[in-house]
Amino acid sequence: MTLRVNGDRLRQDLADLAGIGALESGGIGRTAFSPADARAREWYWSRCVAAGLDLRLDGLGNMVAQAPHPADLPPVWTGSHIDTVPHGGAFDGALGTVAALECVRRLAETGVPLRRPVCSVVFSDEEGNYGHLLGSRGLSHGYTADQIAALTGREGDRLVDALAGWTWADGSPTRTRIPAGSVHAFVELHIEQGPKLEAAGVDIGVVTSIVGLGGAVVEFAGRADHAGTTPMSLRSDALLAASAFLIELPEVAAAVGPDSVVTCGLIQVEPGGANVVPALAAVTLDFRDPDPARLVMLERGIAGVARRIADATGVSVTWRPDEPIAPMPLAEPVRDVIRHSASELGLSHVDLPSGAGHDSQNMAHLAPTGMIFIPSKDGRSHSPAEYTDFADVERGANVLLSTVLTLATS
Amino acid sequence: MTLRVNGDRLRQDLADLAGIGALESGGIGRTAFSPADARAREWYWSRCVAAGLDLRLDGLGNMVAQAPHPADLPPVWTGSHIDTVPHGGAFDGALGTVAALECVRRLAETGVPLRRPVCSVVFSDEEGNYGHLLGSRGLSHGYTADQIAALTGREGDRLVDALAGWTWADGSPTRTRIPAGSVHAFVELHIEQGPKLEAAGVDIGVVTSIVGLGGAVVEFAGRADHAGTTPMSLRSDALLAASAFLIELPEVAAAVGPDSVVTCGLIQVEPGGANVVPALAAVTLDFRDPDPARLVMLERGIAGVARRIADATGVSVTWRPDEPIAPMPLAEPVRDVIRHSASELGLSHVDLPSGAGHDSQNMAHLAPTGMIFIPSKDGRSHSPAEYTDFADVERGANVLLSTVLTLATS
Repeated sequence: MTLRVNGDRLRQDLADLAGIGALESGGIGRTAFSPADARAREWYWSRCVAAGLDLRLDGLGNMVAQAPHPADLPPVWTGSHIDTVPHGGAFDGALGTVAALECVRRLAETGVPLRRPVCSVVFSDEEGNYGHLLGSRGLSHGYTADQIAALTGREGDRLVDALAGWTWADGSPTRTRIPAGSVHAFVELHIEQGPKLEAAGVDIGVVTSIVGLGGAVVEFAGRADHAGTTPMSLRSDALLAASAFLIELPEVAAAVGPDSVVTCGLIQVEPGGANVVPALAAVTLDFRDPDPARLVMLERGIAGVARRIADATGVSVTWRPDEPIAPMPLAEPVRDVIRHSASELGLSHVDLPSGAGHDSQNMAHLAPTGMIFIPSKDGRSHSPAEYTDFADVERGANVLLSTVLTLATS
Repeated sequence: MTLRVNGDRLRQDLADLAGIGALESGGIGRTAFSPADARAREWYWSRCVAAGLDLRLDGLGNMVAQAPHPADLPPVWTGSHIDTVPHGGAFDGALGTVAALECVRRLAETGVPLRRPVCSVVFSDEEGNYGHLLGSRGLSHGYTADQIAALTGREGDRLVDALAGWTWADGSPTRTRIPAGSVHAFVELHIEQGPKLEAAGVDIGVVTSIVGLGGAVVEFAGRADHAGTTPMSLRSDALLAASAFLIELPEVAAAVGPDSVVTCGLIQVEPGGANVVPALAAVTLDFRDPDPARLVMLERGIAGVARRIADATGVSVTWRPDEPIAPMPLAEPVRDVIRHSASELGLSHVDLPSGAGHDSQNMAHLAPTGMIFIPSKDGRSHSPAEYTDFADVERGANVLLSTVLTLATS
């Protein structure tokens, strides 16, 4: 018979963690290095103590729990993050954190023989209060002292100041990098944060890759004119050009691939008077694809439309790209273990890419890495509306347990 | 032989006035009730004194100059405004002000026999620092004490405070209204602020009507979603809906009439994160037509497109209109005098509507009113780039002189 998680204990842990940083307005405010983050870590530590697990900290506050007297081979890691976005939900990060703890605890208390230790890890500041995937990037790439000194939060507050008064780190933020091979494999359980699993009625998503991310500011420049005295035919309206550009983007994404997305979440118009024809419209774009070649095609397609629209409307266009983040394919052998585990538990599963970034994309630099998704109600996330039925949570945790057990015994 | 203005004196007056409030960055900052406005009024007063004219003030700072011992019949008025927008040019308002002064002065010094007095008027705050066409609206409609108390400037400063320390008003801002019929006719010379006369190579524009003005905020409401995890097909993107709406507006205007214009100079997106699909896009519209029926058609056409786009894209739309300002047709008999004056001076002329608002639209409630336009280089206005050749200025001033002379002797 397959080993199962303790569902009641898992449910209680998820509920207890959801109470830490709970906001009166609904949702959870537990941003990295906040007092709520500290209370969550204290709670996590107490749960480790209760389970007889040792807890180690590094210089950025990444926390690794494991049973004492582990085997000698490189460990299997599983985990996620404990921090949230400012008005976040109860599942993003928390799910993978408590499920990983439950797996390590369950393995320890049942005394299943393992070839390798299994560790439960909590990554610091996944949501990027101070840096994009801060803790896991510290593990995979490390930071220099200059880089650490330059990291600031949403309100310009410095990471070094946050770390100075922080109990949950060991004082060495520039010595967090660990060698490739020191971890045997990594697996993360997470809510999908999208609508695909729910829509398809599938229990488990096997993540094939983590999306690549491009960004750009596209500036259309026309000429400011009096809104009353300038005939329509003599205008050079930057906002009309930007609008013509924006409405073509869904077609560009569809032409590149089914997982391509393009979003403009921010547009700025100058001079910004109600009675002045816009001289400038600056469009901030976010575009993603899980396939590296398609991400390049997507960027080229978008830039091509911008140039064509500019030519057709007689405005000028400037394309200012951000440094792209490459897509990260996840390890086929780990994906195979996840599929096998789901099937053995009688659960349906489907391969799908992750449209959001995760610590797994940094861990994939260190070890073969896999991710398990469970459904998100209505695909909502980064919001108090984030919700997943506990039945799905328990299914996901059991797939995670079976997966790490297979990885730790093979 | 036809009476002509003194070109050298007119040129010098225009240059002197342009020096008052001149900015180091170019352009002119002479907003209503500013120290520069006070200096310009002092200069104007000194020019009246030099010409032997009397100057009267009302409670909002409107100034009326005329020769002493006038005839008994209701006067002909001509004039414009002395204030500018914050970074304005040297012609908008200033042209009509100095040309009117020159006409009254020229008539006085030549002693041409008149049936009616001719007055040169300077309207307060045409550019609406405190209220849309403030001074002329005070003459045509008047303000109650409550209305005066509610008027505030761009930075929330109150008109009553500006008036309290203001030498150039008589202390009775609620007693500025004058009866219809107390003015025989009104004529204003102004730059076109648009490109039509220059493009057509025509000397003089005979304004047929002052444009009607509608405004609305159109709010498209969709749903905020994660820019990475939400497939394009499952989004309800408010900005895409707004973009599809905006690019149809030029066609709507073209279908209504050749003088219809629609402008979105301002768009706001919420929540406004680069990685969040917009939940809300609020579009601020300005739409105009010189014909009342067409202005209604234009508003209906725009609102219809908004509804159709909302239906087609699955977002909701809210249409929040401003109080419309009706188009104001100008008096055909005065237009006829202007045409005749231009022809007599050997100048080409064309009928055209005004796309901008002017004090003439308030004066038209009090008396038969006409406006004379001269070309604006590249149609630029409300900008340091505002420019008109002095040859055009002199032509316009001579048409104005001939027009007021005809009106004052008939």
